[in-house]
Amino acid sequence: MIQKQLFAARAAKNAVAALTTEEKNRALCAMADALIAEKNTILSANASDMENAKERISSVMLDRLRLTDARIESMAQGLRDVADLPDPVGRVLEETVRKDGLTIRKVSVPLGVVAIIYESRPNVTSDAAALCLKSGNACLLRVGREAFASAHAITEAMRHALRACGISPDAVQLMQDPSRASAEALMTGNGIVDLLIPRGGAGLIRACVEKATVPCIETGTGICHVYVERSADLQTALNVIENAKTSRPSVCNAEEVLLVDRAIAPEFLPRLYDRLVTARTQNGLTPVELRLDAFAQTLIPGTPAGEQDFDTEFLDYILAVHCVENVQEAIDHIARHSTHHSEAILTRDENATELFTQEVDSAAVYVNASTRFTDGGEFGLGCEMGISTQKLHARGPMGLHELNTYKYIIYGNGHIR
Amino acid sequence: MIQKQLFAARAAKNAVAALTTEEKNRALCAMADALIAEKNTILSANASDMENAKERISSVMLDRLRLTDARIESMAQGLRDVADLPDPVGRVLEETVRKDGLTIRKVSVPLGVVAIIYESRPNVTSDAAALCLKSGNACLLRVGREAFASAHAITEAMRHALRACGISPDAVQLMQDPSRASAEALMTGNGIVDLLIPRGGAGLIRACVEKATVPCIETGTGICHVYVERSADLQTALNVIENAKTSRPSVCNAEEVLLVDRAIAPEFLPRLYDRLVTARTQNGLTPVELRLDAFAQTLIPGTPAGEQDFDTEFLDYILAVHCVENVQEAIDHIARHSTHHSEAILTRDENATELFTQEVDSAAVYVNASTRFTDGGEFGLGCEMGISTQKLHARGPMGLHELNTYKYIIYGNGHIR
Repeated sequence: MIQKQLFAARAAKNAVAALTTEEKNRALCAMADALIAEKNTILSANASDMENAKERISSVMLDRLRLTDARIESMAQGLRDVADLPDPVGRVLEETVRKDGLTIRKVSVPLGVVAIIYESRPNVTSDAAALCLKSGNACLLRVGREAFASAHAITEAMRHALRACGISPDAVQLMQDPSRASAEALMTGNGIVDLLIPRGGAGLIRACVEKATVPCIETGTGICHVYVERSADLQTALNVIENAKTSRPSVCNAEEVLLVDRAIAPEFLPRLYDRLVTARTQNGLTPVELRLDAFAQTLIPGTPAGEQDFDTEFLDYILAVHCVENVQEAIDHIARHSTHHSEAILTRDENATELFTQEVDSAAVYVNASTRFTDGGEFGLGCEMGISTQKLHARGPMGLHELNTYKYIIYGNGHIR
Repeated sequence: MIQKQLFAARAAKNAVAALTTEEKNRALCAMADALIAEKNTILSANASDMENAKERISSVMLDRLRLTDARIESMAQGLRDVADLPDPVGRVLEETVRKDGLTIRKVSVPLGVVAIIYESRPNVTSDAAALCLKSGNACLLRVGREAFASAHAITEAMRHALRACGISPDAVQLMQDPSRASAEALMTGNGIVDLLIPRGGAGLIRACVEKATVPCIETGTGICHVYVERSADLQTALNVIENAKTSRPSVCNAEEVLLVDRAIAPEFLPRLYDRLVTARTQNGLTPVELRLDAFAQTLIPGTPAGEQDFDTEFLDYILAVHCVENVQEAIDHIARHSTHHSEAILTRDENATELFTQEVDSAAVYVNASTRFTDGGEFGLGCEMGISTQKLHARGPMGLHELNTYKYIIYGNGHIR
């Protein structure tokens, strides 16, 4: 069964790659309509997932699993939004005409078959299918057991729409075997799977990186740092830190660690405490728990930080605080502890800016701005398949272009070398 | 010892990434001078490698291992040529200024630490070091045991030059442990090795793809097809086929398999036999051994092809010949047997051209030209670190740009989301 699905994806991929922009857009809109038309089926499948999962997973996870009318409408809108994006396939990236007349054209083409392994968010099903289809790829989706019925109902609706548009429904397949075997078949599907994208927690991503023999892009984990350099405007720093930490603590581009120059810590940390703890409490907002290194503990109240606090993606109202001597020490701390997602410096010093942006080896390096901007939509990609935290092929937010590769097409007239 | 070298590469990488173009070019020229200055040391190390290897490896391999005055001079020239190429680091690939003034700049940056595992060609040592240095990367080179002394002498010369230029010699390191352990440490050097490039035979490449947990780019193996469609100009076809097969049979872009439309096979195959066998023999050139499918055997003399002949990179004066019904059958044969390197169609038919270039999923797809052009130099990259036969990050010839990644540097003014 698993192999049959892999072969079906391979068999479908050339037809998907050859679809015109109009055919793809029509299919995406039909898929959106089908989600609405089959909403009741999807909601009842989701209710069964929720019932089965409620004693096994946390309330945060349960909330991610839950579908509502509004969430299904938002998934359908997501499909229509992808239809509105420019087609990434067939762009001439470079063209060289040699002196001998040989024409070398570098053209964007689909990757072929893209596999996505995800956990409990049913909406990833339609988001991933839409981006893969628009970029000309067949996709193999593998969802966690707890969201299987929901993802199955969503996929079936989309496949009905594909069939009605005269497109092979094997362009979008959900792996029907929810056991570990199907995930492993995708990780080792050499010759069929052109790219594997894990979307989920650190454990899933590590398993994929370790076991995959197909090309795999690490996404998502974000231990993001904000560094307040001694020349920073402290009011700006407070604004950026509160935004980076609290505007949406559960996402990967939220700040987890604050680095502060020791020279300004005695002035700055009490203001930080007022802003993140006192004022938020007074205003009825969730205060931030500060986990402080030894130096910071001498200046403000907070929880003493353990070493693991500087290597943890809290995804919560918790901020680890470490004081450093200077920009180089901040850079070194980031090199040791970062997941290479997003880091920011607050500064008014050009040399510090230069050194920090040069040496910090992360997908996104901010100067006087919040790490929360690392997002496909904010970066103008129109959509996002995840945030790559590795360096090969794609780095940072992955949009439609990152779901293409290229090939060289060379036109001659009997040219020999 | 192995870990110490990995840590030294990681420690050196920021300094290498920060080198100016002038510093890198000066170092490359000094490295070239050092190869010449230490030529005798290198030659005597090579003589010792040759002596130890002569009873263990084939004469073809021995020839690859051999260094001469001329080969060392050519290696030095290679270093100088890389100095003349444009610096790939620091290019602004895209820049967006949002309405709110936030400036998002996508900038090319070095990968960091690049590992190259290669076999018995000592010249790869200086080629790879030059391309890594120019692209701002520290490199870890791991050579096969039989070329270790030669590679060591070459590396030491280059490191002397780096030191004299005030650059950390750990920018270029040869793994000092020639056992399997050093190769495996590179394949699993997560957190240190940013890219692994295997350069060598199919066995080495397969081992890297299977065992590597660091990002790895498959290079090199080329089972390249030339397809003569029925509308082809047959004289052009003969010229291209003889060039693709015989101009340098030992390289990866040489033709290994010929596909011929059955409709023209009765006319074309006898002319092919005359050209590749009869005429070459008469002209004192090595004739090509033809390995024929059943249909071709009814038309010309040759060796009956076994199934494995269509899955073999001969790297020799051998050509497997298979007859097909039409362009779709040619495309399907290529999909089953190709290594996705380079394929060519000979045709005067626009529909056949369109279908072949659309559906053949290889790095380079030729229309009426020889597969031999797939080469960094011929494609105008100025150099080459190998030919990628996979789709992620780099496809086809890899030059300096492909040894860079990018990061986003975002400049704000206290921007929050």
